[in-house]
Amino acid sequence: MITREQHDRMANAIRFLSMDAVEKANSGHPGLPMGAADIATVLFSKFLSFDPKAPHWADRDRFVLSAGHGSMLLYSLLYLTGYEDMTIDEIKNFRQLGAKTAGHPEWGHATGIETTTGPLGQGIANAVGMAMAERILNARFGDDLVNHYTYVLAGDGCLMEGISQEAITLAGHLRLNKLIVIWDDNNISIDGAISLTDSTDQRARFAASGWNTLSVDGHDPEAIATAIQTAKKSSRPTLIAAKTTIGFGAPTRAGSNKAHGSPLGAEEIAGARAQLNWEYAPFEIPSDILDAWRSIGARGAEKRAAWEDRFAAADAEIRAEFERRMRGDLPEGFDAAIEAYKQQLSADKPKVATRKSSEMALEVINGIVPDTIGGSADLTGSNNTKTSQTGPIKAGDFNGRYVYWGIREHGMAAAMNGMALHGGVIPYGGTFLTFSDYARPAMRLASLMGIRSIFVMTHDSIGLGEDGPTHQPVEHVAVLRAIPNHIVLRPADAVEAVEAWQVALKSTRTPSTLALTRQNLPTLRTEHTAENLTARGAYELAGAEGEAKATIFASGSEVEIALAAKVELDKRGIPARVVSVPSFELFFEQDEAYRSATIGNAPIKIAVEAGIRLGWDAIIGSDGLFVGMSGFGASAPIDALYKHFGITAEAVVDAVEGRLNKV
Amino acid sequence: MITREQHDRMANAIRFLSMDAVEKANSGHPGLPMGAADIATVLFSKFLSFDPKAPHWADRDRFVLSAGHGSMLLYSLLYLTGYEDMTIDEIKNFRQLGAKTAGHPEWGHATGIETTTGPLGQGIANAVGMAMAERILNARFGDDLVNHYTYVLAGDGCLMEGISQEAITLAGHLRLNKLIVIWDDNNISIDGAISLTDSTDQRARFAASGWNTLSVDGHDPEAIATAIQTAKKSSRPTLIAAKTTIGFGAPTRAGSNKAHGSPLGAEEIAGARAQLNWEYAPFEIPSDILDAWRSIGARGAEKRAAWEDRFAAADAEIRAEFERRMRGDLPEGFDAAIEAYKQQLSADKPKVATRKSSEMALEVINGIVPDTIGGSADLTGSNNTKTSQTGPIKAGDFNGRYVYWGIREHGMAAAMNGMALHGGVIPYGGTFLTFSDYARPAMRLASLMGIRSIFVMTHDSIGLGEDGPTHQPVEHVAVLRAIPNHIVLRPADAVEAVEAWQVALKSTRTPSTLALTRQNLPTLRTEHTAENLTARGAYELAGAEGEAKATIFASGSEVEIALAAKVELDKRGIPARVVSVPSFELFFEQDEAYRSATIGNAPIKIAVEAGIRLGWDAIIGSDGLFVGMSGFGASAPIDALYKHFGITAEAVVDAVEGRLNKV
Repeated sequence: MITREQHDRMANAIRFLSMDAVEKANSGHPGLPMGAADIATVLFSKFLSFDPKAPHWADRDRFVLSAGHGSMLLYSLLYLTGYEDMTIDEIKNFRQLGAKTAGHPEWGHATGIETTTGPLGQGIANAVGMAMAERILNARFGDDLVNHYTYVLAGDGCLMEGISQEAITLAGHLRLNKLIVIWDDNNISIDGAISLTDSTDQRARFAASGWNTLSVDGHDPEAIATAIQTAKKSSRPTLIAAKTTIGFGAPTRAGSNKAHGSPLGAEEIAGARAQLNWEYAPFEIPSDILDAWRSIGARGAEKRAAWEDRFAAADAEIRAEFERRMRGDLPEGFDAAIEAYKQQLSADKPKVATRKSSEMALEVINGIVPDTIGGSADLTGSNNTKTSQTGPIKAGDFNGRYVYWGIREHGMAAAMNGMALHGGVIPYGGTFLTFSDYARPAMRLASLMGIRSIFVMTHDSIGLGEDGPTHQPVEHVAVLRAIPNHIVLRPADAVEAVEAWQVALKSTRTPSTLALTRQNLPTLRTEHTAENLTARGAYELAGAEGEAKATIFASGSEVEIALAAKVELDKRGIPARVVSVPSFELFFEQDEAYRSATIGNAPIKIAVEAGIRLGWDAIIGSDGLFVGMSGFGASAPIDALYKHFGITAEAVVDAVEGRLNKV
Repeated sequence: MITREQHDRMANAIRFLSMDAVEKANSGHPGLPMGAADIATVLFSKFLSFDPKAPHWADRDRFVLSAGHGSMLLYSLLYLTGYEDMTIDEIKNFRQLGAKTAGHPEWGHATGIETTTGPLGQGIANAVGMAMAERILNARFGDDLVNHYTYVLAGDGCLMEGISQEAITLAGHLRLNKLIVIWDDNNISIDGAISLTDSTDQRARFAASGWNTLSVDGHDPEAIATAIQTAKKSSRPTLIAAKTTIGFGAPTRAGSNKAHGSPLGAEEIAGARAQLNWEYAPFEIPSDILDAWRSIGARGAEKRAAWEDRFAAADAEIRAEFERRMRGDLPEGFDAAIEAYKQQLSADKPKVATRKSSEMALEVINGIVPDTIGGSADLTGSNNTKTSQTGPIKAGDFNGRYVYWGIREHGMAAAMNGMALHGGVIPYGGTFLTFSDYARPAMRLASLMGIRSIFVMTHDSIGLGEDGPTHQPVEHVAVLRAIPNHIVLRPADAVEAVEAWQVALKSTRTPSTLALTRQNLPTLRTEHTAENLTARGAYELAGAEGEAKATIFASGSEVEIALAAKVELDKRGIPARVVSVPSFELFFEQDEAYRSATIGNAPIKIAVEAGIRLGWDAIIGSDGLFVGMSGFGASAPIDALYKHFGITAEAVVDAVEGRLNKV
């Protein structure tokens, strides 16, 4: 039993670690940790199920600090509860190069950080994905193994971002009752009082999407505890609006935007020490308080031990399967099944769109890999993301494997990240490639974190046709390639499509985007190879007869055009070779010898892609030729568009001949 | 007075034009036009104030088809009401190359299209900006000249997108009572019934943000008229939830997602003709119905004539100013003021961050150009977007010139587009460059439309420092440069900053993004030039002494580094020149002679930019050297970061010497 005095001192430990760390770094956000310290103390001391000695325990509750700028709140909690990698030196090193205590919480830097937050609204959407993953795994493994809560601390910024609406409407629709969002309702954003920018009744807004909502004084520990208890019993996700004072304890800055994002200064901190009766030096936590915090951490060990007992009592096969899934390994037999399927494709030579090839590959994959959870942002029939194995996930029934995400591209991508972070499931989700723009902030975070979210982006060029330039990605392949640690795969046929899926599924530390066509393409890889050539990023698909005068590089739907151009060039006595380039990132990871052999020495290098040139110079050189787009597309049938924009075999031939005549 | 029978026939004219055009194109979306035909007929016949003979009349009501896939609804209305450029041949040419009737409505293709829609949620957010512009101009020019409504037809897709939440919370907060959103509440999205993906009570949701809300049978013309009448009198923005049947009139597909996005087929259309008693051939509109529609268009002329009379009665100076603003011209004396200010800067040589230089430039600009409306997505003090002239815009008081956009980057960008489309104002708005990702779909549409939205993106590199990799743009400058028709300006000092603003303001058909530093930079342009050198995109800032062995290209904060490297190289007997590259797009627009002279013949070309290499090959060649980033940033103080990532003058010198030794 924690007395009120103890509670206050425990919360003040968070406040002073935060104030002092920000002061020492001369940079950071003291306001939120000070304001939300009471909430966090109640949540961690009375509710959160976690074990600092086993931070990866699968059935722990998840805590997401959606308001990531308040990172010192989380770091303080990790230190106080006894996470071994969060030392006091790390706290002192806040925001310094190489510290685990980055400006915003970075997943992978320290254990106990469940996701990278900072870009507002992402955390709450990640949490929706985590809560979905929990229910999905619960449906498979039962209450004994999977039965935990997902808690979010969100600020006004998170709730003002559009992505939060996508997240909460989805959570309400799916009745994710084990998701509890505590809103740090401090009435302040960077520009000033919230009344400057917003008049939304947040409780009414959440209620409109089927949430249970509560209000509470965020500095009253008993009231907070009662609210969380109530929330845990709800049949709906719960919003707890916790009224707080930003920078609580700061004598002149509390309650104002001056407490938000900069060090308080020595004088203000001294005033806070006096006001909160905190007589300790910076970074010094009195032993009774540290003990109180550490005992919470220790208490979590009991819960975990009980879980370990239940786990040990489970069937060996179930245990092995659970562990495999939580490790993120693919099931045995995966590679063999892909290989067999590739063999079949090279024999069958289907002429289908790569979105269809992707569906065919998924039909095989989803049969072998029970971890995959598919979905689409309301384009199921267009993205071809649903297979025979993937029944719908619904409120009250999480046995399915398919999420009808609705028109929520951003929320989908961020929730997929949450699913991947939770573990035990492999999320893939689709939309049109042009709408990757809507999902981009979450896609970038997948790359920054290095997690296996797989984005299925169809209708990947002007080949989309009549829907016109708003729906035609022109720069999108290039700008996705620009995100560090992001594999963009643009397969040319059914074989490359399944190889792309194999790459994506095996890249456990890198998200992938598959760029897929609307239009049909022939099978080009008619000779079976055991090796996954797509994993090379680029490879010679057709060699030259004699010494090559030109190498034609192409990706996706334009590889067919490249091959047609080669035939014509050969006819005209200009030996040409064709290199298929399904992935820049994978190609640039190959060794120098492979790269230069693949690029080759032909005097003319030409690339064909129904997108902008950007990025191709790294392969064809800045003097290389390019057949593609240089501006927005247009609304017309596909054939008219390829002709209009001059992305044809004839254009390739003309460009090569033009250059030859010039040389 | 329109009888019910007349109404039905007028609405059916829309339905059949839409069905028949989609059928002929063998592509398109018949469902919405058929479902919303009654709403549109009531709105256009009884309420919308417009004149097809003067489609650009400044005080017309704006109609935004946010659900842009229903483009045939709009095209039908434009044809029926008599817009001269919307001929029956254009309708027949729906979705064909070069037609004004693109798959989705494209602003600039035909008059009467108020904005480009298709990417869901954009239209409703554009409309918020239009309604703001209306109030802002009303505050300046009074009811006689500016007093109109903004109507939106939105579907479930628009309301599910997160951007809609940003838009409606802002509209509610600003009490934009002349904004009326009609929700085509047809219960259907592409994947099926809305119940598959969402359970939101939309009226409650809008009410939570201060909207007036109404429900109505969307096929009952009288009820629709009453609702719009009520909405017009509200002191709040209004949502009218209009219950409709998608594909109304289609015998088997009505009410199902099968009516949404593909041709109905001959049989279904024949069935619809029978069911709706429409005995006319495809594209044939009986003369009584065409007359009825055309008389609506003619009635608008009266309203406009009355406005013209009021306008003629206004003071000559006011008339001239109103016309100047609606034309989008800058006031006389603008260039001279910029020139004088540049002169002063070259003399004063301030050492300030370019975000501060931008503020200083804006202080001059906002003093001369009353059209500018500033703002920031809750980063006013960081983006430096507010000047002494720009008081806040508030509910009930639109005399101000500054929008506290709140944490709504996407909504801000889309509403800025709406303001630019409305005309009479020039919107600029800020956030951190890394969060351009959140605003990207709207920024792309600004480019596609070719409108003057100006995005002020500060904290443009790892120079941001401690906030870490989530907040550090690494790929963002490159990926904004990738958007066609988008000017990205990354000024190196206070002179380039004001030149950048001059370019942005004078580029009436292209949006601009200014990428600005957090950190201080010295004035490099210490010699005044009358010419706007930034408008050249790139120019020699420092020549070599003797024949240059190296040219160092740099943008923004790295130009200082380039100059320091040149000094050191010169010392070591390696003559180097420095080219400042504030804008790729502007540079590539220069003539060949200027470009090659600027790039020069130095054997070594090296670029320095605190971002990824992508795009630079077009200037330095694929064998050029690059000093910059190749992955995500880190959390640390700025100096530590530049050193850690090797973006220093020493690194430039080393790279040049390394290459020289190799040659």
